[in-house]
This record gives sequence, C-alpha cells and structure tokens, in this order.
Amino acid sequence: MTKHNILLTPGPTPVPPEVLEVLARPIIHHRTNEYRKIFKEVSEGLKEVFRTKNDVYTFTTSGTGAMEASMVNFLSPEDTILVLAGGKFGERFLEIAKSFSIAYDVLKVPYGQAFEPAELEKALAAKKYRAVYATHLETSTGVVNDIQALGRIVAKTDALFGVDTISGLLADRLETDEWQVDLAISGSQKGLMVPPGLGFLSVSEKAKRAMEKARFPKYYLDLKLYIKALADEDSPFTPAINVVLGLQKSLEIIKKRGVENVWKDNERLAQATRSAVKALGLELFASRPANGVTAVKVPQGVDGSKLLKILQDEYGVVMAGGQSEMKGKIFRVAHMGYITQADLAVGFECLEEVLAKLGYTFTKGASVKFFAYGVRA
Amino acid sequence: MTKHNILLTPGPTPVPPEVLEVLARPIIHHRTNEYRKIFKEVSEGLKEVFRTKNDVYTFTTSGTGAMEASMVNFLSPEDTILVLAGGKFGERFLEIAKSFSIAYDVLKVPYGQAFEPAELEKALAAKKYRAVYATHLETSTGVVNDIQALGRIVAKTDALFGVDTISGLLADRLETDEWQVDLAISGSQKGLMVPPGLGFLSVSEKAKRAMEKARFPKYYLDLKLYIKALADEDSPFTPAINVVLGLQKSLEIIKKRGVENVWKDNERLAQATRSAVKALGLELFASRPANGVTAVKVPQGVDGSKLLKILQDEYGVVMAGGQSEMKGKIFRVAHMGYITQADLAVGFECLEEVLAKLGYTFTKGASVKFFAYGVRA
Repeated sequence: MTKHNILLTPGPTPVPPEVLEVLARPIIHHRTNEYRKIFKEVSEGLKEVFRTKNDVYTFTTSGTGAMEASMVNFLSPEDTILVLAGGKFGERFLEIAKSFSIAYDVLKVPYGQAFEPAELEKALAAKKYRAVYATHLETSTGVVNDIQALGRIVAKTDALFGVDTISGLLADRLETDEWQVDLAISGSQKGLMVPPGLGFLSVSEKAKRAMEKARFPKYYLDLKLYIKALADEDSPFTPAINVVLGLQKSLEIIKKRGVENVWKDNERLAQATRSAVKALGLELFASRPANGVTAVKVPQGVDGSKLLKILQDEYGVVMAGGQSEMKGKIFRVAHMGYITQADLAVGFECLEEVLAKLGYTFTKGASVKFFAYGVRA
Repeated sequence: MTKHNILLTPGPTPVPPEVLEVLARPIIHHRTNEYRKIFKEVSEGLKEVFRTKNDVYTFTTSGTGAMEASMVNFLSPEDTILVLAGGKFGERFLEIAKSFSIAYDVLKVPYGQAFEPAELEKALAAKKYRAVYATHLETSTGVVNDIQALGRIVAKTDALFGVDTISGLLADRLETDEWQVDLAISGSQKGLMVPPGLGFLSVSEKAKRAMEKARFPKYYLDLKLYIKALADEDSPFTPAINVVLGLQKSLEIIKKRGVENVWKDNERLAQATRSAVKALGLELFASRPANGVTAVKVPQGVDGSKLLKILQDEYGVVMAGGQSEMKGKIFRVAHMGYITQADLAVGFECLEEVLAKLGYTFTKGASVKFFAYGVRA
C-alpha cells in the first residue's frame, strides 16, 4: 500500500475530483464565445462569493499579484498609506509599498494577535491616509481579524480599505460590501478549491473614483485594461484558461452548497480542530482563531520541523510549518475548501502517532474522536 | 456526431493527452521536496529548449508579464531603449515602455515585413541605447525575424538584446546563447504545449550585470526574488503548480523527440501549409514566413470574420483572425506544438468547404493533399 496523500495546508488546498476532471479537458481558445460565456459566469460567481455588487477582476498571477494591483492602481507617489501588519502576509503589503517607494505607517500587533479596532481609530484620528491595508485571515498566524469593525472605522474617512482575503475567502465570513471593503484581494488556491494561478480583486465605487487619479506605473497589472476587457467578458492578456474552467466548476459546487453553508462547514471543522488540539494538551497560537486554518504551538521538547517532516515523508500528511520568525514554533492545520472531516481524522491520527514517536505524552485517541464519523459538532 | 474540436490557433495550442492527464492529478504543495525536484527538472528542461546555459525564470503570469519583467528589471528612468515594432506584439513593448515612462525610439516595418539588419545597424550607429527589444515570431503577422543577424549587431554595443519568443520558442529556431540574446521571453501555451499561466525569462550574464543598476519599481515581477528562490528550487510566490507539473511532462516529450527534430517537424508542417495556401490561390502575408504560424491574406470578395465564424461555429475548427489593424484582412493557421498533420488536414478540408460556401473559387482538394497520410514533405 502507498502512504496517504492528505493536504492539510492553507493553500494550495485539495482540488475536488469534479474540478480536476475539468482541468484535464482539451484546452479551448479564450477569444471565443464559448470562453466568454464561461468567463462571464465565473465573474458573476466571484461577485457572489465576495458578497459584492461590484465587479471582481481576475489576474493571471498568484494572490501577491492581486495585492500589488490593489496598491499600484489606486495610489500616487505623494500618498501615505497605513498597513496593519500582524504576520507574514500583512508584512507583504509593506514589502510592496517599499518596492514602489510608497510612504507608509504601520500598525503592528505581535504575531498571533488580532488588531484592536480602537487602535485603528486612534491612528486614523491622528493622520490622514490614502488607504488602509489589512489582512482578513493572516495565514501565517491563524488569526482572523475583525474586518467588519475595522471597515466601519475606515469608512468614516476618505481612505480606501484594502483587505487581503486570499486565505479568508469562503473560510471565514467576509461581507465585502456590507463591511465597506473597497478592495478585496483573493486567490484561486484556497477556499475556491482550484489550483493556484489566478488572483482576484473586487473594486468599490469609491476605489474606482480614486483610481482615476492614481499615478504609479503599471502595465500587466493595470486595472484599466482589465475593466475595459471585462466589459467584453474578456481578459487583456491570455488568461490561465484551464484554471478559469476549473473555477467555473468549483463555483458551481459552492453555489449549490451556498456560501452561508460553506462558512458553517468551515466553522464546524475549525471548532473540531481546536477541540482536538486542546484535547492533546496543545495550545492554540491565535488570539482570535480563524475558521480557515488553525495554528498550534509546537510543544516544548518537540522539534517542530522534524514533526512535519515525519508526517509528510512517512505518513503522507502535509501540514504547514511556521513561516519567517515563526519557523519551528508553530504548525498549521488547514480546514478550508475541499478539506473534509475525514482528511482531518486521518491527519490527527497520524499527528498523534508522530507526537508519540517524538516523546510527547497525551491521551491516545483524544484528538481523533472529534472527527469521528457521525460526529458533526 | 458532434463537430470537430480542432484548435489551429497560435496560443493556446492543443495540449497532449499525457499532459492533460497530469493536470488532473491531485494537487501537491509547492514547499515540498517533491515539488522542488520537479521545479528543478523543469528549470533545467527550459534551459535546453531555450538553448542557453543561463537560468530561465518562471513567472506565474501570461507572456506579457515576462515581457514587463524583461524591461522593469533591467532599466532605469534615465535609459532610452530601441523597440523593433512590426506587429501587435512588437508594439506591446512600446505600450509597456509608455506605461513606465521609459524613453524609447521605434524601428518600424509595415505589418507583414521582417526587419532588415542593416536598418538596426544604422540606428545603433546613430545613438546609444540601454536595450533593444525585438520579436522573434511576430504572431500577429506570421513573420519570423532574423534574430541571429540582429543579435550580432546588438552584441557589438553595450545594449541588452531582449527577444519576445513567446510564439517562436520551439517553433522557429532560436539559439539564445549563440545568437547573443540577453533576455529571451516566452510563455507556456505555445510550443511548450501546456495551458497558459506561466511566463519565462532567460537572463544572460550581461543582463545580470545591468540588473544591479536598474531602478524601476517592481515587486511581483522583481527578478531578484526569483533568483534568490530558484537557488532553492523554489518560487517567491505560490506558482501555478499544476501548469508546472504539466510542463514537466511536456518537456519530457520534447526532450525525447529532441529540439532539433521539433524544429524540423514544424518546418515540414509550415512548408505543407504554405504550399496548401498557395494551391488554393491564396497569398501569404509574411515576407519571411514563420514555421510556427502562417498568416494568409483574406481573398477579395470574402468576409474574413464570417469565414472564421463559420469555420468555428459549424465545423469546430478554430483559426485566428487578424488583430488590431489586420482585423478581417488576414487569417492565421498555427502549426506549432502539438498541432499535427492530421489536424491541418481536417482544418484545410473544412477551410475549403467554407471558402466554397463564401463563393471563392479554387480547385477542390488542392490544399488537403499536402497533408495526406504518407505525405511527409
């Protein structure tokens, strides 16, 4: 027998077989009515999952490309922005800003903590910003930020509110319009259950007005080209066609289940995961844990890198380690997209075995029972 | 019976079934040894097909993203470049230059013509340029430019030589190192026979030295991040994993056949196509016709858009129309990548039927015989 092949990572996430099948179909040309019809359906479907009436634009990039698009299309060299950075992905906004010499201030929280809306309120009272960028689900720490509360504060100012929901979309509730998010950024390889290769950006009316004045240079990520093309159900450049076709199928699956139900499914799996973690005597890392991914502190005496390596090499279970300064200190279990209760049951079964091998003591079976068949907490 | 589904477009081109099968395999994580091994193999394979000893970098973008990368990573605001623009894709370099306020001069030829090396020699004698950008196979006109001769001229100067071989790679001979191409740009969806979603850039030592001084802003396309990552067989951002996996398979197929043989196959199909076109009394558009795609003048009295629409809607044969100013004036038949003699036979059979329907007179069967079984010119 071969070992398992269970992906419990927060992106890429497993792709449903119905979507895999579509990826393997003979390629079609993108300048055809057949493709335009599909792209139109996909663009409409994205609006539904983003919970927005505004258009959602599709870039052939990873999520980072869409993050860059959310900045260079709306800012000019004289602007100052505020970045809420509480992990590796919040910091990515800073890296992009640095690369483009965009002036910025940073609101920081220690890794694992969520942002306090009151802190944002203070910052915005003290200074004017062209835009505020925040992370919905900070994948590197497992924290979900209170975008609703943060959005309410930003909306009182002239600043745009840009939110990275690359990992958050469809895992943790996000109401783009209701929560006054001007720029919601996402990617294909997480809650949307297709392979990586596409980045997305929803753009509010407020953001579209700001765009007119923006003067940072761009071409491949120039939103005006995408807006013009989308009016024709088209892309300015050759899109990642087979990923778009796969997305049509996955959006169909999501629509059938309903966005609210997808959120509930994720919440249930997240709760079970958190219970399982605690039952092993392990500690959650996030102060405000997300429903898309759970970050767990590596217990004292256990080598975090070894834990993940054995899990992957000997058991075929792929969990994610800590990134940057969190390397070796946490591990992360995703429960978004097509990750099922059964995947988590096997994942925790194997996790228990490896923890035992590494000398960690706990009650055997304590975690797995939360994912038992028939247990739908 | 359903109609044909024959793609004779110069990108995307058909994907071989062995590659389609790989695209449908369960996704793997990119930060694993399994993926790193594959990515290493792909990066080595790309060097072979680019005919270079230098590294080839992979971007999750369409080819245009790699074109932009070939400019913003090597230029600074005070530089002036020379662009050889003889079609829609040569002009794309100009559009990118305009977007980034890069100063440029243009060498033009009428659509359908190739560049005269002597003209380039004159231009470079008259003025110093930081870089010269040219198109190998100008997809919009079916012209293949004499990159070898042009490269010899640029190499005598300090200018970098950037060549868009998005459609040219593996269709028309390109010897990146021998022909002194500093920056060869390509994409996944043409001669490489995988779906769109990846852009490639080979970088010479001369270009790497120039990179150190380049000061245009960039982040998602910042080559330094890709160089650093490639040293670890990694990508700076989540790559289009399933396209990379497909590329591993297609490079395996290409390697087995041999790059020289792939060029010969294409040349044979191109010659047959040109003979077929002439046998119908039709005219070639390109003065120096490429082996990747043949551009054909729409004959007087025939509506070019209608021709392609009937071919596609009623026969399931997709050829490409003219782009921009060539719309309605030419149509284009690709014979690169996985397009076979049999595909072209059916394509021309259907083309003859549609031409007859539209009142064009010719000897029936005159074109198809060039693709007959057993005829391998």
